[in-house]
Amino acid sequence: MLMTDIIANKRNREELTNKEIDFFINGVTNGSLPDYQISALLMAIYLNGLSPRETVDLTLAMAKSGDMLDLSSLGDKTVDKHSTGGVGDKTTLICAPIAAALGCKVAKMSGRGLGHTGGTVDKLEAIDGYKTSITAEEMLEVTKKHGLCLVGHSGNFAPADKRLYAIRDVTATVESIPLIASSIMSKKLAAGAKNILLDVKFGSGAFMKSAEEAETLARKMVEIGNNAGRKTAAVITDMDIPLGRYIGNTLEIKEALEILKCNGDQRLRELCIALAAKMHSLCFDCDIKESEELSIKALENGSAFEKLCESAEALGGDVRLLRGEKEFPEAEANLKIFAKEDGYVSAINSELIGKAAVLSGAGRETINEKIDLTAGIYLNKQYGEPVTKGDTLATVFGKKEKLTLAAELLEKAYIVSKEKPKSRPLIYKTVNEV
Amino acid sequence: MLMTDIIANKRNREELTNKEIDFFINGVTNGSLPDYQISALLMAIYLNGLSPRETVDLTLAMAKSGDMLDLSSLGDKTVDKHSTGGVGDKTTLICAPIAAALGCKVAKMSGRGLGHTGGTVDKLEAIDGYKTSITAEEMLEVTKKHGLCLVGHSGNFAPADKRLYAIRDVTATVESIPLIASSIMSKKLAAGAKNILLDVKFGSGAFMKSAEEAETLARKMVEIGNNAGRKTAAVITDMDIPLGRYIGNTLEIKEALEILKCNGDQRLRELCIALAAKMHSLCFDCDIKESEELSIKALENGSAFEKLCESAEALGGDVRLLRGEKEFPEAEANLKIFAKEDGYVSAINSELIGKAAVLSGAGRETINEKIDLTAGIYLNKQYGEPVTKGDTLATVFGKKEKLTLAAELLEKAYIVSKEKPKSRPLIYKTVNEV
Repeated sequence: MLMTDIIANKRNREELTNKEIDFFINGVTNGSLPDYQISALLMAIYLNGLSPRETVDLTLAMAKSGDMLDLSSLGDKTVDKHSTGGVGDKTTLICAPIAAALGCKVAKMSGRGLGHTGGTVDKLEAIDGYKTSITAEEMLEVTKKHGLCLVGHSGNFAPADKRLYAIRDVTATVESIPLIASSIMSKKLAAGAKNILLDVKFGSGAFMKSAEEAETLARKMVEIGNNAGRKTAAVITDMDIPLGRYIGNTLEIKEALEILKCNGDQRLRELCIALAAKMHSLCFDCDIKESEELSIKALENGSAFEKLCESAEALGGDVRLLRGEKEFPEAEANLKIFAKEDGYVSAINSELIGKAAVLSGAGRETINEKIDLTAGIYLNKQYGEPVTKGDTLATVFGKKEKLTLAAELLEKAYIVSKEKPKSRPLIYKTVNEV
Repeated sequence: MLMTDIIANKRNREELTNKEIDFFINGVTNGSLPDYQISALLMAIYLNGLSPRETVDLTLAMAKSGDMLDLSSLGDKTVDKHSTGGVGDKTTLICAPIAAALGCKVAKMSGRGLGHTGGTVDKLEAIDGYKTSITAEEMLEVTKKHGLCLVGHSGNFAPADKRLYAIRDVTATVESIPLIASSIMSKKLAAGAKNILLDVKFGSGAFMKSAEEAETLARKMVEIGNNAGRKTAAVITDMDIPLGRYIGNTLEIKEALEILKCNGDQRLRELCIALAAKMHSLCFDCDIKESEELSIKALENGSAFEKLCESAEALGGDVRLLRGEKEFPEAEANLKIFAKEDGYVSAINSELIGKAAVLSGAGRETINEKIDLTAGIYLNKQYGEPVTKGDTLATVFGKKEKLTLAAELLEKAYIVSKEKPKSRPLIYKTVNEV
């Protein structure tokens, strides 16, 4: 088989065979294909697309290019959840414990934050002692015992996707629905769960800027997941404004604990219940209403909170922090920004808030930067809330020297208008398993 | 300027600016752009095309990426001729002397043969002593004095095209009309002639398989040439059957001399007159009929033949070979193939004949192979001629051990049918300067 023929076929709008796709991904993985042939095919795929069959074949080939986690010993209630990335998105820390409290098996590997979007692993590391890097065996053990294991990536998942993504990034071939979908889903398939819930975000703080784009991506990923034999659904959610009131690692752990203790931001709580319910209904084939009621109960009776404590303890985390018996470390300093006029908060640009969080020290621009776990942002005023001139709009936490620049960006992120803005529905649509 | 933005623009079907094209070609030339970004852009160009303006800009940028020959001291009757490559195509050896005899200045650099197509430089080297590698100054001097200088490439012409072609060859982006046209024309523009005649071939032995494709390419090249300030025209000619009766280097020199001495294959003579006339009419703005009459006269009165002798002598060639005062070296052996039935020659597959010539030793598969100047093929029977069972169809010349394989291919190239085939017009169309 010749790579030039494969490129020519896709260039000519022909459907690639399963064998051609396997040849391509093998060559990507073992290094036998040069970057320039890979990028030529990627551009041909970008412009001529992939059929549903090709997309599934590509995703499976990438999933199989590295380690494949075998969760079968945990039964068929294993569930994974993936967010396409947002600002202040601490939902995993809440919905996963709820789902686990309801009998789902949540063995979930998360990533680190990069650019303006945060990552669950960084947040978990704000819990002193919590081991985010464990072996697959340890992961199975913790999940079997506690139903919940939130950690970082261990092993070599979808190495073909890593190389493809690096090439796409420098050849203007990132924004292709089948390529984005197969990239995400290859890692989800390799992670082994039988049920997969996708949280596809749209808006200023998300990769997808419009709800329609997000829906197209969601449908493609759900199609791949289901065709690959996993029960897959997606929730399309608003990321035009930050999720909750806290952005930053320790800060988001604290906010997640608030929700798990039945306090906190109602909009965030609403989304977490919806996500947990969807995870539960995928696993148990329940009516979504029933799953929602169970999820609310798991929050209210404290069983979700206990699940998080139990799992964190098993992973070495200092549970006194979670139970409020010990204080989380606090940032060195903080700086507030104030309303310059009366009115309503009519926009909080998520992307700018995310960038301000990076400037505060809470995030990183490149993968090897160190972060300040205590740094971040508190939104004293959320979208739609009334403000009076002089009110604190937001507070930035971090090392003294970092606060001014971060605060300047915060100022740009807020818009205060005379009229009360329309309320924004948080969940735009649910794409159910086909 | 970022290469990823340039790729994204072409990917999005936007027209690239002159600056973007210059940035791209500079990066190709100085090595600052990696192959994978180049191939991604090439695929985007392949699929989304280039506007006439972009194509001219690309061609000029490539032409300027290396040496540019300055022929202005020769006046404005300088004329170049380019063939897209064929089998048995010795027309340059005939039409260039005719044009020179009529007052055109033909300073022409030719290439070597590769694969099934031959190259003028190899043929010239069959003339003992003929220097095909000279400096630009020597070239100007010979042309000034004799009006004719047929040599190989000296200097570094269009290095950007060399790198682009190498990448296109391995990324399935060769067959793109704007890329083919700009590749050819960049070298023609760098070669400096004010007038350019293109012989665009189609059929089994040519790069373009159909007359329609050849015409599309011809129109694109003529458009580029004229937009770049050169008077450019193209002749679209049949290469489904070999040109003339001889294929091979010494053999083709001999056949060219036959035509220049007013003998030889009439179809070949007809094409050479048409090409010479077009070169003349471009230079002198004549009516083509008048140029044709002058061309025939230059053949008949021997002035074209004298021009070749004069120029060859200036370049060190042994003119006794041309004048018939000394024999050309002959091949070690030969082998004939015979007609197996009565009928007419209804097809001679040019590509197979070209490949048989390579097998005989007359050509090369890779650029550094040595060739046997005496080797080649004689077509005892041409297309349309009647044959009787047992007649010699063709003869292969070369080293003994090479003849059998070559003869086997020759057998495959010939088809003898009961019915006399339709005559094939040699010139399909002329594309005049716009």
